[in-house]
Amino acid sequence: MSEPEKAQLSSSQLRVQANVIRGLAIDAVEEAGHGHPGAAMGMADIAAVLYAKHLRFDGANPDWHDRDRVILSNGHASIFLYSLLYLTGVPGVELDDIKAFRKAGSKTPGHPEVGHTPGVEVTTGPLGQGLGMSVGMALAERRLRDEFGADVCSHRTWVFAGDGCLMEGVGQEAASLAGHLRLGHLNLLYDMNSITIDGSTDLSFSEDTAAKFKALGWHVVTACGHTHDEIDDALAAAIAETTRPSIILFRTTIGFGAPTKSGTSGVHGSKLGSDEAAAAKAALNLPAAKFEIPDDHLATWRAFGARNDAEHNAWRNRLAQLPKDTAASYDRRMSGQLPDDLGQLAQATKADWAQSKPKVATRKASQMALQVLTTHLPEMIGGSADLSGSNLTKTTAMSTVFSAEGSGRYVNYGVREFAMAAAMNGIAMHGGFVPYGGTFLVFSDYMRNAIRLSALMQARVIYIMTHDSIGLGEDGPTHQPVEHLASLRAIPGLHVFRPADAIETLEAYETALTLNAPSLFALSRQGTPALRTEATAENMVSRGGYLIRKPSGKRDLTILATGTEVAIALDAAEQLARESFEVAVVSLACWSLFDAQPKAYRDEILGDAPRMAVEAASSFGWTRYVESDDHVISVDRFGASASAETLYEEFGITAQAISDKCLRLLNNHRAQKSVQCQTGELA
Amino acid sequence: MSEPEKAQLSSSQLRVQANVIRGLAIDAVEEAGHGHPGAAMGMADIAAVLYAKHLRFDGANPDWHDRDRVILSNGHASIFLYSLLYLTGVPGVELDDIKAFRKAGSKTPGHPEVGHTPGVEVTTGPLGQGLGMSVGMALAERRLRDEFGADVCSHRTWVFAGDGCLMEGVGQEAASLAGHLRLGHLNLLYDMNSITIDGSTDLSFSEDTAAKFKALGWHVVTACGHTHDEIDDALAAAIAETTRPSIILFRTTIGFGAPTKSGTSGVHGSKLGSDEAAAAKAALNLPAAKFEIPDDHLATWRAFGARNDAEHNAWRNRLAQLPKDTAASYDRRMSGQLPDDLGQLAQATKADWAQSKPKVATRKASQMALQVLTTHLPEMIGGSADLSGSNLTKTTAMSTVFSAEGSGRYVNYGVREFAMAAAMNGIAMHGGFVPYGGTFLVFSDYMRNAIRLSALMQARVIYIMTHDSIGLGEDGPTHQPVEHLASLRAIPGLHVFRPADAIETLEAYETALTLNAPSLFALSRQGTPALRTEATAENMVSRGGYLIRKPSGKRDLTILATGTEVAIALDAAEQLARESFEVAVVSLACWSLFDAQPKAYRDEILGDAPRMAVEAASSFGWTRYVESDDHVISVDRFGASASAETLYEEFGITAQAISDKCLRLLNNHRAQKSVQCQTGELA
Repeated sequence: MSEPEKAQLSSSQLRVQANVIRGLAIDAVEEAGHGHPGAAMGMADIAAVLYAKHLRFDGANPDWHDRDRVILSNGHASIFLYSLLYLTGVPGVELDDIKAFRKAGSKTPGHPEVGHTPGVEVTTGPLGQGLGMSVGMALAERRLRDEFGADVCSHRTWVFAGDGCLMEGVGQEAASLAGHLRLGHLNLLYDMNSITIDGSTDLSFSEDTAAKFKALGWHVVTACGHTHDEIDDALAAAIAETTRPSIILFRTTIGFGAPTKSGTSGVHGSKLGSDEAAAAKAALNLPAAKFEIPDDHLATWRAFGARNDAEHNAWRNRLAQLPKDTAASYDRRMSGQLPDDLGQLAQATKADWAQSKPKVATRKASQMALQVLTTHLPEMIGGSADLSGSNLTKTTAMSTVFSAEGSGRYVNYGVREFAMAAAMNGIAMHGGFVPYGGTFLVFSDYMRNAIRLSALMQARVIYIMTHDSIGLGEDGPTHQPVEHLASLRAIPGLHVFRPADAIETLEAYETALTLNAPSLFALSRQGTPALRTEATAENMVSRGGYLIRKPSGKRDLTILATGTEVAIALDAAEQLARESFEVAVVSLACWSLFDAQPKAYRDEILGDAPRMAVEAASSFGWTRYVESDDHVISVDRFGASASAETLYEEFGITAQAISDKCLRLLNNHRAQKSVQCQTGELA
Repeated sequence: MSEPEKAQLSSSQLRVQANVIRGLAIDAVEEAGHGHPGAAMGMADIAAVLYAKHLRFDGANPDWHDRDRVILSNGHASIFLYSLLYLTGVPGVELDDIKAFRKAGSKTPGHPEVGHTPGVEVTTGPLGQGLGMSVGMALAERRLRDEFGADVCSHRTWVFAGDGCLMEGVGQEAASLAGHLRLGHLNLLYDMNSITIDGSTDLSFSEDTAAKFKALGWHVVTACGHTHDEIDDALAAAIAETTRPSIILFRTTIGFGAPTKSGTSGVHGSKLGSDEAAAAKAALNLPAAKFEIPDDHLATWRAFGARNDAEHNAWRNRLAQLPKDTAASYDRRMSGQLPDDLGQLAQATKADWAQSKPKVATRKASQMALQVLTTHLPEMIGGSADLSGSNLTKTTAMSTVFSAEGSGRYVNYGVREFAMAAAMNGIAMHGGFVPYGGTFLVFSDYMRNAIRLSALMQARVIYIMTHDSIGLGEDGPTHQPVEHLASLRAIPGLHVFRPADAIETLEAYETALTLNAPSLFALSRQGTPALRTEATAENMVSRGGYLIRKPSGKRDLTILATGTEVAIALDAAEQLARESFEVAVVSLACWSLFDAQPKAYRDEILGDAPRMAVEAASSFGWTRYVESDDHVISVDRFGASASAETLYEEFGITAQAISDKCLRLLNNHRAQKSVQCQTGELA
């Protein structure tokens, strides 16, 4: 379809195309027996106009780097997105996939999952986070545009969102941040259907959304979501506005077309039922047979999908005209490849530090590592949730701030931890960047579900969580993490690092960068000695755990520790050595990586001598490595407002206390062993 | 001081009184060596006017039920609150406590902690949550006022908050909810000092706050925070407005009085330093000596504290005039005592259910239990974050909805999980209520730090978290909790219940109500059989874990399970019994309560036979009770979009799969035991 042709699609033609989506939504939910047809039916007209006239995309090539991003923040409407992917000809999304909606093993799960379904940009469903990720997408786009030029990068981020996304704190933080940063290529399509799960939004929501978004610095447009000219004008206005993010408040009817259920919460999360489905399809002038789409309707949708063929080609040509170095850099960045010499760089830095032996807090070691890495890796984009000076997330390479005026490399996210995490997910999934961001470890709580999404998407995001224990000191129990290491280690697919010194911190960064998965660093406020003073060729932290102290003879005891407690454990080991015990100390910097090592390696490291674990955090989970909770020196209650030294003393995390407890363990074990030898039986 | 007298305090007199706070803030932070003097110095004039003229409180009796609540949402400014408590004569807060600011064991920790310092209403510090709790306080006040009359309950909630609280998602959700509910007795005192930790708020915050709050339905007032007449008028206007919450945007100077550091982020979280401190005190006309307060200034503050003596007495008299039953009910409610006959009620219900054997999802059992309890306990106040129909949190007693118009017992919190949790904390800490609220277990992530605050404050809040596993089904991995049970069990002081059937659910409620601590219920979407079919006199769940299946002979094996997996474990046990194994099954409904049982009880329940654990969640933490991760049947990766049955099958959580794995364990154990007998040694 040529530009003049598509511009001339009449309102009734667009309605026909929209109704195809409605038909698929009705049928797929009916076939599954469950799902969310209402929002898909409500938003179908918007999609028809957007895809027919405005969206920059290429159905046959959904990975086109310079495509507009479409994010479905109200992810429960997944059938809406799946229908669009199928209709516009995304390879690998077929009608059979629509028919298998919400079934085991299908490409069309209950909520959109990136990596699982071609053309899905991010995993959405937990409300508000799609909006947060869209802010990250728009931020990444603007930065990339400034780096490589608008010829190569100039696309928009369109985010569909419902009332729920706007009510959620993360959505509100994200909206505030987007307004502040004046992300002009971000367009929020608000499906204002006035219905939530519990009924009318009046039950719980009475904001003047237009006034609110104006107050946040947004460009605000309103339109009827079922009047195609209005939709068209609104989308055009959003595109024309390039200095502020745009929100279009689309008045829509949830379940549009369902004769008795439209406009009610009954159509939000349930199938229509066969009678209502049949009546709706008749009212929408759709074929009665399930999943039947008239050829010409499908052909028109496919034409929408092919609408930007010429523009895609023109883009390829512009890309080909880039200077060779720039093109190579762009390709490397978009492929997510690291520079070839990263290993050398890390090794050289390690050699430096093996000499200088920096005795610093690991948050400071993090800054030192970042100083080297951010200088060398232009894809790193940093930030903090208003704790830059505490998290030490700034480096000289990060001196350009991302602001309303310019797209620097450092983002002042404000006191918005959750939006920061969601935005970082969006930045990572956009491509071209490795985002990192800081706050206190205790506030990982605030962004926890976004960290979970990082893990679910295997997004390469680095969370820099400082002040990682009672070592935080006088700010007291509200700010001292206790259960956080355990709770984060429990998230599948997240790598939690707690490095013991500067070199371990560097190794953790090198590992995190190569993982293609999210990493979370727990870093100390307080100083700790340099423990690793040789520039080992091997990245020891990449193993997850290793012997940082090897006994000379047969092991009597193994002490497992992480972070700043490794130094204390080493001191305890020295005390025990003076009493002729052979003590190994394991730095267990990353449990998930250690658990992934071959059994032989793990057995060698853990040894078969009795074990004691030491960590200034909850003992929860440590029994994976030690016999019982009695073999963990830990912090199993909330902390207190006092100096780090006082608290470590109070909780028995000193070399003396560890050594004393280990001695008792060794004596018990000796006594036990002697009983066993006598009776010849244990169980 | 009489009413006419206090009304005539001149601006200069009020400045003098404000400067006393500034002096204490400067000296206390200087003495500690660290802390946050800036906000305290900035807000001192507001406090002087509020306490001198408007606040309804009684310094000598900080527990007066009908006092205005003062919440310091910007809890880092704790010295501000401590100073006010000391100055107004709160018993148990002395000048020595101010001198011990942020020291080990002091009454004046880094952030305010309720229960630790007399007069502190709630624990604050994690930004935004004080604002959330203040919404709960105002909600509780309005409900109590409607229940017992304005003669007995009519007070305001004053919440101090900074930019951070307004940027946080939880603060924004709370503000939106308060506007919707038209909480007219809520007054937000916004310390608009334009400085955050990282520098000027311009770095990250450019909202038009006044316009935004208007859009949320608030009454908006602006004033200079250092001009006493303006402060006075603004506070009076906030008090006069009773149908909308009020926000006063106070333009303030952070560190007011510090000659070179005021108005900068340098005074936010650091001591002034001796020179700046001395210069500030001189500029503020304060005695140079540390902690010195002229007698007449202290006397005036004490007079502020005694200002409402007459009103407090009048209130006592009004309370005494209440009908006897009403007074008894009010006293019971405010003391937090449960009705005497709760035990009988639970027992009778248990007897009913032992007969009817309801085969229901535990979320349904929860609703059945709530139906009984909410009818009987008027202090219960319920709600859901827009999932009432899924969480099954509504009962007939909850038919009155808390809305803009009236104060019913059920709160539609909207899609605002974090604000719901924070508000419930406020409701619980206000007194008179036991709040409960629902969402999906996976969204415990969204409110996690408020759950943590419940635990830190030991607030009696009940979290009803349904859809507690992959049993949620087709909505897929974004909505299926995996790591959540582990991550919540790791929070000190939180009781996580995962009941196995209807009677266990009832017992869990009875236990939770008596705990005076927060409880979190993980409840199933899918149905499960009635397992407990006798009305035992003992509340078995209150023990945390117990033998739900006792073997007849010497135990060969113990299976530990929770929730819906208990029924599956019992089926597996039956299969194993048919092969002549003596199998015990433990329902481990609440780990924290089980761990608190005497060792003899725990040993008896766990037994010394080999153990296998079964839970449709992460294995993380289970090694506390079983030998190794190999002894846990669990879900250690993200789920998928498929039916509950398919997923349970896929993850090996069926009676057959459990029985097979147990058989392998028993065989291994037998083989091992035989080796031990031969060698006579294990380690």
